[in-house]
Amino acid sequence: MAHEKKATSSTAGVEWRINVGDGSSKILVQEAVLATRAWLGLKGLVFKVRKFWEKAYDVGVNDPRKVVHCLKVGTALTVVSLFYYLRPLYEGFGGNAMWAIMTVVVVFENTVGATIYKSLNRVSGTSLAGLLAFSVHWVACKSGEKFEPLLVGASVFLLASAATFSRFIPSVKQNFDYGAMIFILTFSLVAVSGYRVEKLFELAHERLSTIIIGISSCFLVSMLICPIWAGQELYALVTSNMEKLANSLDCCVAEYFSPDDSNKNLLAYKCVLSSKASEESMANFARWEPPHGCFSFKHPWKQYPKIGAAMRNCAYCIEALSSCIDSETQAPEFIKKQLSTACQRVSSNSSSVITELAETIKSMKRSCNIDFLVEEMNSAVEELQQALKSLSKLSIPPESKNITETPTSAAMDTKVPLMEVMPVVTFASLLIEISSRIKGIVKAVEQLANVAEFKVTVQDKCNETQRNNKLQGQQKDEETMKVRQWF
Amino acid sequence: MAHEKKATSSTAGVEWRINVGDGSSKILVQEAVLATRAWLGLKGLVFKVRKFWEKAYDVGVNDPRKVVHCLKVGTALTVVSLFYYLRPLYEGFGGNAMWAIMTVVVVFENTVGATIYKSLNRVSGTSLAGLLAFSVHWVACKSGEKFEPLLVGASVFLLASAATFSRFIPSVKQNFDYGAMIFILTFSLVAVSGYRVEKLFELAHERLSTIIIGISSCFLVSMLICPIWAGQELYALVTSNMEKLANSLDCCVAEYFSPDDSNKNLLAYKCVLSSKASEESMANFARWEPPHGCFSFKHPWKQYPKIGAAMRNCAYCIEALSSCIDSETQAPEFIKKQLSTACQRVSSNSSSVITELAETIKSMKRSCNIDFLVEEMNSAVEELQQALKSLSKLSIPPESKNITETPTSAAMDTKVPLMEVMPVVTFASLLIEISSRIKGIVKAVEQLANVAEFKVTVQDKCNETQRNNKLQGQQKDEETMKVRQWF
Repeated sequence: MAHEKKATSSTAGVEWRINVGDGSSKILVQEAVLATRAWLGLKGLVFKVRKFWEKAYDVGVNDPRKVVHCLKVGTALTVVSLFYYLRPLYEGFGGNAMWAIMTVVVVFENTVGATIYKSLNRVSGTSLAGLLAFSVHWVACKSGEKFEPLLVGASVFLLASAATFSRFIPSVKQNFDYGAMIFILTFSLVAVSGYRVEKLFELAHERLSTIIIGISSCFLVSMLICPIWAGQELYALVTSNMEKLANSLDCCVAEYFSPDDSNKNLLAYKCVLSSKASEESMANFARWEPPHGCFSFKHPWKQYPKIGAAMRNCAYCIEALSSCIDSETQAPEFIKKQLSTACQRVSSNSSSVITELAETIKSMKRSCNIDFLVEEMNSAVEELQQALKSLSKLSIPPESKNITETPTSAAMDTKVPLMEVMPVVTFASLLIEISSRIKGIVKAVEQLANVAEFKVTVQDKCNETQRNNKLQGQQKDEETMKVRQWF
Repeated sequence: MAHEKKATSSTAGVEWRINVGDGSSKILVQEAVLATRAWLGLKGLVFKVRKFWEKAYDVGVNDPRKVVHCLKVGTALTVVSLFYYLRPLYEGFGGNAMWAIMTVVVVFENTVGATIYKSLNRVSGTSLAGLLAFSVHWVACKSGEKFEPLLVGASVFLLASAATFSRFIPSVKQNFDYGAMIFILTFSLVAVSGYRVEKLFELAHERLSTIIIGISSCFLVSMLICPIWAGQELYALVTSNMEKLANSLDCCVAEYFSPDDSNKNLLAYKCVLSSKASEESMANFARWEPPHGCFSFKHPWKQYPKIGAAMRNCAYCIEALSSCIDSETQAPEFIKKQLSTACQRVSSNSSSVITELAETIKSMKRSCNIDFLVEEMNSAVEELQQALKSLSKLSIPPESKNITETPTSAAMDTKVPLMEVMPVVTFASLLIEISSRIKGIVKAVEQLANVAEFKVTVQDKCNETQRNNKLQGQQKDEETMKVRQWF
């Protein structure tokens, strides 16, 4: 008794609905529609899986060391599994051998420093908790059967709460976060299982030795097969960030004055803005690492995040600077040209200061040029200030009156109005602010050089480079003068 | 045969050295010196311990919920420990009951969302790994005694490597980082222990049920006793950051024009700069939470980090703005005064836009004033631009010539030179940039309002508020005019 057919369109396909006499309705799903849906669903799934694989492939290609790390984890786990395969060891350690596997899985991290940090935390947390649990168990045993569960329960509650709270205290969080968790775990397990298992001391001894076996295999694999040192990573991150900052600054200024340039490195400073967390965690892990490469045992890793902070301070200003490029209100071309050379000199001098600082950290030798370069930067800033002063005397050149479209009526005067100059003045003063913030980076790197006792480069070479630099500086100045005269 | 006595001062105390006849020297450590050293050491230790306690006390007082969290962990652990104390359960679950304790220790996190995330990851990782390990074990059993250890070893190596690699893929890292680790752990344990233990299926079943018992106790304690919701925290963080941003902006401008003001909130914007990581992790955890408070099941948590990013974008500029306050080169007071009112109007209008946005998110109701406030902000910006234009016509007032010290000779002209105006022009244009970046926050909040379907406030009330606002605006304008005339 079908009265009417309705075709209601849905996002996935078409539904055929029949209204039956009693008011209810039935849906006729055509086989073809079902097949189409299934096909579309399958297609979507295949697309998603493909995209996922592409992403995974990219991760591997961009940093092949990640692949190596995975193989290292596999190796360490397989090595530890030998303890199960070999019957004598199995009989020796029994069910506790699983603790070795667990240790490898939980402790093996990407960098050597993180692995050592977690390992030492695990050992100290386990030992301390085991010792405490043992004493609590002993006291509980002496106190009679009635109080035994009460005492064990209360100690678990109190110590677990206290250890959890300690993880919120910054100094504990930085050095013993993982250890505190392991402490809670071991204490609860030993205290509670001690209530049942009689051979508590033997158990604790076995557990600690299996953990040490797990940790040793982690140490060996982590340090001997393509080691990734947190210190080395931090050092590479800070120096590459410096180069990015220098590039970004140069690109920003070049892009402002001639927007045709390709600006691949324009946004490189964003890396500096977002690397605070990784800098801090790597500096924290690097402290646990043994001497490696050119880093001694007491290398001042804590200094690197300070350099990072100084760089971020500079990057904030570059962020504001880059917004000038996309700003709606722009100064007329002839005003921009007036400041172009001076601004570009400030940016190139500033970026060469940053590059020199990166070089200082890379070579771990004090730069003999840095004072000269900072002086150059200062003189470039002074020059820019002079150029800004000369702006007030600027009048609109006859030919540019017709070329540049100036919407305000004030622009028809011979003197350039303030509103026209404003965008470029803002740009220039941000640039000056950036160069003053760069001095903060210089200071931070100097501190590092002092604390890490960077060597001084040979004086003769120094003098020669300074002579060359001065010559180049003079040439640059002459070029600048020529460009000036051209206006 | 002591020849001479030397007193060499050291940092810790005084050493008495006797040179003996054969050239060697002996140190006479006086008992008094030793006691002094011990006393100093003890004093230092007591000082350190005291400082540590003070810090711990501060952590507890500043956020009492952290203390509550610790007590919750203690409670959950004690509850789970009951499974050991009660004999029937002990006999049922045997040594596996330790998995319940381990689950509680590892899974219980500060927020409900993080606890649920870790719990679900643990269950799914364990189940998947158990299933896979079971099949591998079955295939290995069929393949004969010779190939058995080889097959198990190879599967552990391959799957552990693959799972470790998957943790580097962003989408896996975000949602299943912990699950992947648990997968490796369980697979290795089950595959390897399966080689020895015959009753593998029973073991897997028991382990899963103990884990579920652990998780259930975590869920109950976490959600029923003073729950801390990641969503609620994120929402509070974003709104409080907005208020801080508004305060900071106001303080910054007030401080620039009248440095006597107390500037407690001046650096509040730094919170906005540093809260990227916590915003993202909280948004990630909030997605796992059931509906709570005013948040429905599919609340668009991912929108909050976007609002946070827009705020940071704004905070970068405030950072640059705040550097104008401490800058060495300052505009003379009479120029500052010329722009003071206009700048303060922009800042107060901008901050009221931000405050209104915070109110919108807080009340989860669309604001009917926001368009009006943005308009007001725009008109304030236009007014500031007018004030900047009028700067070029400014001449030095006769009385201020004597009061303000102007080092450049150009300042002796009647027209104000550009260099004098520059700092305040930079300040003003940064302020204008900030107000344009605030529109980015407005957009992000609007998106949130659309996706989360915020309700519209009653129209009558809306109109009334708008009328009041207009009246207030007119009054403000009149006041501004009065202040203007005063100059």
